[in-house]
Amino acid sequence: MRYLILSAIFLCLAMGSLAQSNNYIRYVNPLIGTQKMGHTYPGATVPFGSVQLSPDTDEQPHNIGGKYNKNAYKYCAGYQYDDRSIVGFSHTHFSGTGHSDLGDFLIMPTIGELQLEPGSREDTSTGFRSAFSHSNETAEPAYYKVRLDDDNILAEMTATTRVGFHQYTFPASDNAHIILDLMHGIYNYDDKNVWTFVRVENDHTIVGYRQTNGWARTRTVYFAMEFSKPFTSYGFKNFGKEDYKGFWRKFDQTKNFPEMAGKQLRAYFDFKTAANEKIQIKFALSPVSTDGAMANLRSEIPDWNFERVKREGQAAWNRELSKVAVTMLDEGEMTNFYTAMYHAFLSPTVYMDTDWQYKGLDQNVHKAAGFTNYTTFSLWDTYRALHPFLNLIQPTRNRDMIRSMTAHYDQSVHKMLPVWSHYANENWCMIGYHSVSVLSDSIVTGNLVGAEANKALNAAAQTARTKYYDGLEYYMKLGYVPEDKNSSSVSKTLEYAYDDWAIAQAAKKLNRTEIYNEFIKRSENWKNVFDSSTGFMRPRMNDGTFGKNFDPLKTEGQGFIEGNAWNYSLYVPHDPDAMIAKMGGKAKFASHLDELFTMHLPDEFFAETEDITREGIIGGYIHGNEPSHHVAYLYNWTDAPWKTQERVRMILKHQYHPTPDGLGGNDDCGQMSAWYLFTALGFYPVAPGSGQYALGSPAIKTAVLKLENGKTLTIEAKDQSEKNVYVRNVVVNGRALNRNYLTFSEVTNGGKIVFEMDDKPLR
Amino acid sequence: MRYLILSAIFLCLAMGSLAQSNNYIRYVNPLIGTQKMGHTYPGATVPFGSVQLSPDTDEQPHNIGGKYNKNAYKYCAGYQYDDRSIVGFSHTHFSGTGHSDLGDFLIMPTIGELQLEPGSREDTSTGFRSAFSHSNETAEPAYYKVRLDDDNILAEMTATTRVGFHQYTFPASDNAHIILDLMHGIYNYDDKNVWTFVRVENDHTIVGYRQTNGWARTRTVYFAMEFSKPFTSYGFKNFGKEDYKGFWRKFDQTKNFPEMAGKQLRAYFDFKTAANEKIQIKFALSPVSTDGAMANLRSEIPDWNFERVKREGQAAWNRELSKVAVTMLDEGEMTNFYTAMYHAFLSPTVYMDTDWQYKGLDQNVHKAAGFTNYTTFSLWDTYRALHPFLNLIQPTRNRDMIRSMTAHYDQSVHKMLPVWSHYANENWCMIGYHSVSVLSDSIVTGNLVGAEANKALNAAAQTARTKYYDGLEYYMKLGYVPEDKNSSSVSKTLEYAYDDWAIAQAAKKLNRTEIYNEFIKRSENWKNVFDSSTGFMRPRMNDGTFGKNFDPLKTEGQGFIEGNAWNYSLYVPHDPDAMIAKMGGKAKFASHLDELFTMHLPDEFFAETEDITREGIIGGYIHGNEPSHHVAYLYNWTDAPWKTQERVRMILKHQYHPTPDGLGGNDDCGQMSAWYLFTALGFYPVAPGSGQYALGSPAIKTAVLKLENGKTLTIEAKDQSEKNVYVRNVVVNGRALNRNYLTFSEVTNGGKIVFEMDDKPLR
Repeated sequence: MRYLILSAIFLCLAMGSLAQSNNYIRYVNPLIGTQKMGHTYPGATVPFGSVQLSPDTDEQPHNIGGKYNKNAYKYCAGYQYDDRSIVGFSHTHFSGTGHSDLGDFLIMPTIGELQLEPGSREDTSTGFRSAFSHSNETAEPAYYKVRLDDDNILAEMTATTRVGFHQYTFPASDNAHIILDLMHGIYNYDDKNVWTFVRVENDHTIVGYRQTNGWARTRTVYFAMEFSKPFTSYGFKNFGKEDYKGFWRKFDQTKNFPEMAGKQLRAYFDFKTAANEKIQIKFALSPVSTDGAMANLRSEIPDWNFERVKREGQAAWNRELSKVAVTMLDEGEMTNFYTAMYHAFLSPTVYMDTDWQYKGLDQNVHKAAGFTNYTTFSLWDTYRALHPFLNLIQPTRNRDMIRSMTAHYDQSVHKMLPVWSHYANENWCMIGYHSVSVLSDSIVTGNLVGAEANKALNAAAQTARTKYYDGLEYYMKLGYVPEDKNSSSVSKTLEYAYDDWAIAQAAKKLNRTEIYNEFIKRSENWKNVFDSSTGFMRPRMNDGTFGKNFDPLKTEGQGFIEGNAWNYSLYVPHDPDAMIAKMGGKAKFASHLDELFTMHLPDEFFAETEDITREGIIGGYIHGNEPSHHVAYLYNWTDAPWKTQERVRMILKHQYHPTPDGLGGNDDCGQMSAWYLFTALGFYPVAPGSGQYALGSPAIKTAVLKLENGKTLTIEAKDQSEKNVYVRNVVVNGRALNRNYLTFSEVTNGGKIVFEMDDKPLR
Repeated sequence: MRYLILSAIFLCLAMGSLAQSNNYIRYVNPLIGTQKMGHTYPGATVPFGSVQLSPDTDEQPHNIGGKYNKNAYKYCAGYQYDDRSIVGFSHTHFSGTGHSDLGDFLIMPTIGELQLEPGSREDTSTGFRSAFSHSNETAEPAYYKVRLDDDNILAEMTATTRVGFHQYTFPASDNAHIILDLMHGIYNYDDKNVWTFVRVENDHTIVGYRQTNGWARTRTVYFAMEFSKPFTSYGFKNFGKEDYKGFWRKFDQTKNFPEMAGKQLRAYFDFKTAANEKIQIKFALSPVSTDGAMANLRSEIPDWNFERVKREGQAAWNRELSKVAVTMLDEGEMTNFYTAMYHAFLSPTVYMDTDWQYKGLDQNVHKAAGFTNYTTFSLWDTYRALHPFLNLIQPTRNRDMIRSMTAHYDQSVHKMLPVWSHYANENWCMIGYHSVSVLSDSIVTGNLVGAEANKALNAAAQTARTKYYDGLEYYMKLGYVPEDKNSSSVSKTLEYAYDDWAIAQAAKKLNRTEIYNEFIKRSENWKNVFDSSTGFMRPRMNDGTFGKNFDPLKTEGQGFIEGNAWNYSLYVPHDPDAMIAKMGGKAKFASHLDELFTMHLPDEFFAETEDITREGIIGGYIHGNEPSHHVAYLYNWTDAPWKTQERVRMILKHQYHPTPDGLGGNDDCGQMSAWYLFTALGFYPVAPGSGQYALGSPAIKTAVLKLENGKTLTIEAKDQSEKNVYVRNVVVNGRALNRNYLTFSEVTNGGKIVFEMDDKPLR
């Protein structure tokens, strides 16, 4: 009795403190970005959680008969808002990526005759798929609920870091089933499943794994699953062709036989249910073993209290979101802001068991020595703003992410830092070696120090010297990547040059003169692809000549990747002054930018890339993809910084909406959202590693940043309004700032920064 | 200088002690059994070693287009003596099995133009395969040598427990290669490779793994490989269809790219060689990880001294072989004896890393707590004589094998002891649950005691109660397996009954009355399938009637497996007296046995089974397969034990020859050889678990058994000769033995047993 009272008091205190410290999760709408090209998922997850338990509305194969299936792209996160049926709920999802994988372990509750095929979108009665409607759907941080109309089953889910918690409310049925589909996946295809394995340990416990060959070449996810109530019988069907060669016909393995293995398995578990009976499932993941998954399950959710797990998950979200407490002009903007922050805190995801073990890039099991190991590094995207945002608001996590990257380096047979890595695999996606930017930003800002910083720098330099990587040998010899030897050569040259500059900045900070000299020299290589005759960056050949048939509006075959010369030519974030000088000086450059923002980009050019929609484009400026994310800030280096202020407010307004179709392009593991966050706060890291933020125009009214160093920074936008997008003056702790950038330490030293807003530009 | 002298002295001492303690390895011919159906392999291995590094002469697929390929059966051990070419040298082989798997990681040295296909048997120049001849071939314990004629390369190999050591002597070549073939395997087929993975760590080190779905459903073997000299370049070809989906065309992965993965890979490493230059390879295996394999490599062979490793491997063999020191009538018999002992000490094989970690049946990594973990338990075969032989001569190893079996039980989702298990998998081969016999034999003889014995007994009883296993539910309900519900029902009933008796014996020893009562009752179930109208064991139906169309010569469809009613009806090893009574008494039974040994078995009947050749048959008695291995000893239960003496000497003489075709059937992981060993020593365990050995007729002149308890037993066959096959008298430590069996303790208490031989039977 006394215990119960004490528990009740604790409960009240916990809930009270949530109420007291402001409820930010009510501003989060996980459905934002689930329509069109945002590629976000609406399901349940905790900050940086390993489990993303989310509904999948379809499972388009990535390729059919070896040919790429264009419909797959929409389903990078498994869910499309326009769909009217749900296939089931799987446990792993990327947020916002432009290529995909995962979708492991689909769970689906049904009643009536057992159906082991998903059935058609058009007639959900043909399979275990169910119709649903958004009116019966709720998506919150760490909580997702939907009514499955076909069988009138209420599905609810929440999660801890490593465990998904399902709760299904059934109607009365003598014939209820829960399907465990190991064939299902995102970007699946016939032979993606290399092997799957299931053991039914007892009448309520199942373990197993799924091993795939997809975007991650050699990936295995282990699971342990517990039902809140014993099943009455179970079985599986192998849709693949391999049989159990050692079976000797001793068993009927399809029914109540506790071992299943093969490439294409769907298992099912039978129940009898009373009306409104809840069946719960705890589903734990591990990168190491089924034993690891079971230990994760036991340690993270020892009981069957769905409400407590949900409450704690939401409290965890509120803690993270409250690190930046803002007021804005209206609720819609608040929703944009906190949903952006939610999306920014989804990945990289924790990738280790509760005993700190994880699978490394070398496929061996490692123990994270004093750090949390993370995976899913979409670095071509996230080095730009997401990691700088984490470096500012989550420096401890960001440091552990860097430790995860250097562990990757140690395990890499190439001795390279991650390019785009997930689940103990390097998928090599996109270009550059932008890990070095993340490292440099952390070193330059003093977050990564000492032996660890030096080790990271060595890894960065070694990565940038990998001759056989993507044209690097040519780049080191010629000072640029020749297009006739390696395509997308201009994009590569430009990004290598920035990365090299970032390495040099870290070297300077650590007094490593040799590395500094080596890479500061390389950082000027962008000049080698500038063609003064056209005023654009332009592909060069191995013999030194520029490429023919140059069209600065086109992307394909023009030396660029996911961007044309109009956008990519502006990619010298580490030396805009020199770039502007080459492009004809400040005035000419400002006009050039104006033209970019106002020109018409014909459909034929942007249609080449699947990563953006028409909505993600402003004139010729493409916000829906990353290469131009710094561009609106470049007016700061001309005599018209007010145009930056105008543009960024316009982009905030037009590219982010508090609606399912609210993102104009892939969120890309939080990069699109991190752009929003910085920009809404009034500054942006044009060149991570510089220790500087270019000023923009804040969209917040007030913001309080609770920093990990214990200090608090208050940002105030005085006279904030929709019209007052221009910044008349910036006052840092009472002193006017006579430049258009803030330093990292000005922000992290705390105090107050006041932006005085105006409806007229300060020309 | 002083160091060198000391080393030389040690060397002399080591070699001297080998010479002094008798060189038994010179009597071992690993080629015995490599012709026809012995299914042994000639390559290099140490006693119970994890690595069996041996030439493969062909790689017949187990099935072609889903249909069984009859040619595969010959290649269960990879090598057939009649072949004239070698495909390469792989690292894992079963010895003597009648079904197969393994053949992992084929290595082949070549010169000249690189060939990545094995080529044809008829024209070896079409691939990397090479012609060879037996005149250039040497097979010894822990050493194999052959000249590869195509490229004039001398191949030599030796091994430690976990590391194969190759030494190739090349001619001068600018274009020498060593091929690492991950597609190769024994009982292979197109999709047997689930996944293979290779990392080139540096210019002389490679690691990786091979994961297969074969007889073992889910098996992975990891490796680490080091060359004695750096390669100049390397590459691979993927013969499968999957591409590296994450590659983004950044690399040419086929050449000097250090990561390879896929299902059908062959890698190669290029060298330049001087005339007679030796390139050595250390190739370590692990059941756990590539890290584990590398640690095994480093700890077992830290240097490049091929001669030392060979010498130590051979010294290890000599230590094991000298545990039974015999003299026999001629060198041929000595060769039969020590080769049998060699074959008996090949498996079960060590299955754990040097840090005691291994992969368990649950696919998790376990640590062997205070015991050596073993795998490859061919129990339907080896419970009969091999494990009893190990229980006598190698009780420590046999106890660790039992600990490995109970660990298997602990990890089993079925809670069953192994049936036929290998490499962390249960393949369920053949019938019964004969682990219980091995456990019982060890418990009854006092080798397994205390809590461990009780735990083993519990596991045995639980195994025998697994209702869904192979007709057991019927057996428990009806007292027999009904043929209309489960085929081979008579064989199953008979073997279950013996196994149940074995459980009861262990229970009696441990005073576990309940278990004793339960299983002693079950042990009488053999009576339920005896048909007094025919005098044979005969299949019964679920309704209690006997099966129709009964033919005691036939096997197929007659209720038996790998044996007919003539042979299998005699399978009541635990109660021959009762069986003989049912069959009409001693005299009638002796005549019945005479008829078995002298009848003509038409080809059509024995041709049904692929496990034996015509040579493995004497009359209707089939020695080439296991079910009758106790039969010749059954005359001991009649008034004509001299017929046992006559028959067993005849079988020794006719079924074992010191030649490649010297085995009349599969050696079956040492069972055929263990029959030889016991029989040659003069006694045989008709019913393991009885603590008794039936007397036969020794073929040795003298034998000295050096027992682990420190005692020594000398056996002398007085007046031994080819004609003196009859035993006039047996004297145990000076006292005449007035019965025709020895007890376990009479043997293990040491002293002397004299068999007085005669050329006339004692009627």
